[in-house]
Amino acid sequence: MTKEEIEAFIRPVPDFPKPGILFRDITPLLGNAKAREAVLDLLEEAASGLELDAIAGIESRGFLFGMALADRLGIPFIPIRKAGKLPFEKIEYSYELEYGSATLEIHTDAVRQGDRVLVHDDLLATGGTAEAAAHLIDQIGGEVAGFSFIIALNFLNGRRVLEAYKKEIIALVEY
Amino acid sequence: MTKEEIEAFIRPVPDFPKPGILFRDITPLLGNAKAREAVLDLLEEAASGLELDAIAGIESRGFLFGMALADRLGIPFIPIRKAGKLPFEKIEYSYELEYGSATLEIHTDAVRQGDRVLVHDDLLATGGTAEAAAHLIDQIGGEVAGFSFIIALNFLNGRRVLEAYKKEIIALVEY
Repeated sequence: MTKEEIEAFIRPVPDFPKPGILFRDITPLLGNAKAREAVLDLLEEAASGLELDAIAGIESRGFLFGMALADRLGIPFIPIRKAGKLPFEKIEYSYELEYGSATLEIHTDAVRQGDRVLVHDDLLATGGTAEAAAHLIDQIGGEVAGFSFIIALNFLNGRRVLEAYKKEIIALVEY
Repeated sequence: MTKEEIEAFIRPVPDFPKPGILFRDITPLLGNAKAREAVLDLLEEAASGLELDAIAGIESRGFLFGMALADRLGIPFIPIRKAGKLPFEKIEYSYELEYGSATLEIHTDAVRQGDRVLVHDDLLATGGTAEAAAHLIDQIGGEVAGFSFIIALNFLNGRRVLEAYKKEIIALVEY
């Protein structure tokens, strides 16, 4: 299945979460085992040269293909979660959104020193969330080896934000 | 790897999220590819007789092994999400918690009529969340074929609540 065929399983939903926004809904993709497998084949292939030690998935939708990719590669999965969810010793990082701010957290024992970690989320928009995740991994002694997304909304310039890290950026479907 | 060996990857964290609660933390399990695989082997084996058409995973932690199990079985994955997250046509169901209430949502096109669906979450506590998920699946025309959990806290009687459905209840580690 090609990227174009995968794209057919991403449903555009107008005016969500607010008027004027065209939301890219991955639920049809989750509902099709063949399309999901094609996504994982492409992610695995793109990640294969990165010598990864772990995948970090960002709550919630980054848990879906992030965990599945970690399974494919046989390496640890690290959950990066919203404030107040992780129970053990942790650090947090807050970042600005269009309106207000958001906080992500990671357990301090989530990596060994120098572990090469791929940051995964379903969607790249402005890049603020992925950058916050990268910051957390740096802070606990991991090395960000790259970023992966199912979808990139390139008109929001997230790719430019992440390019500052000079790491691999994997995005399967770009708008 | 046996259930007892898997249990060694579940970390008890005292006084989270509040004093007196012993939280069962699955992040060490997520961080060990072999233990994760053993969990999926056991879930797959337990689910194999159920003639499943789909796995429904409850946000957020139910996304992790729920999606991975759907991959193993080669069947659709249905996300059941907290209020306001799903973008397409949907229904909601609210239920009581110890303090206050919670709402879950499902897309109305998530199943075909009569599809046999396994409800998955990481943890069974009072059963309220799993019951809400089952109600949503019923409402859109699916049939709940069973429930699966990594952990069941049997002293909270969730198993008794779900037994009313007379469906399979899969729980790998029970306290």
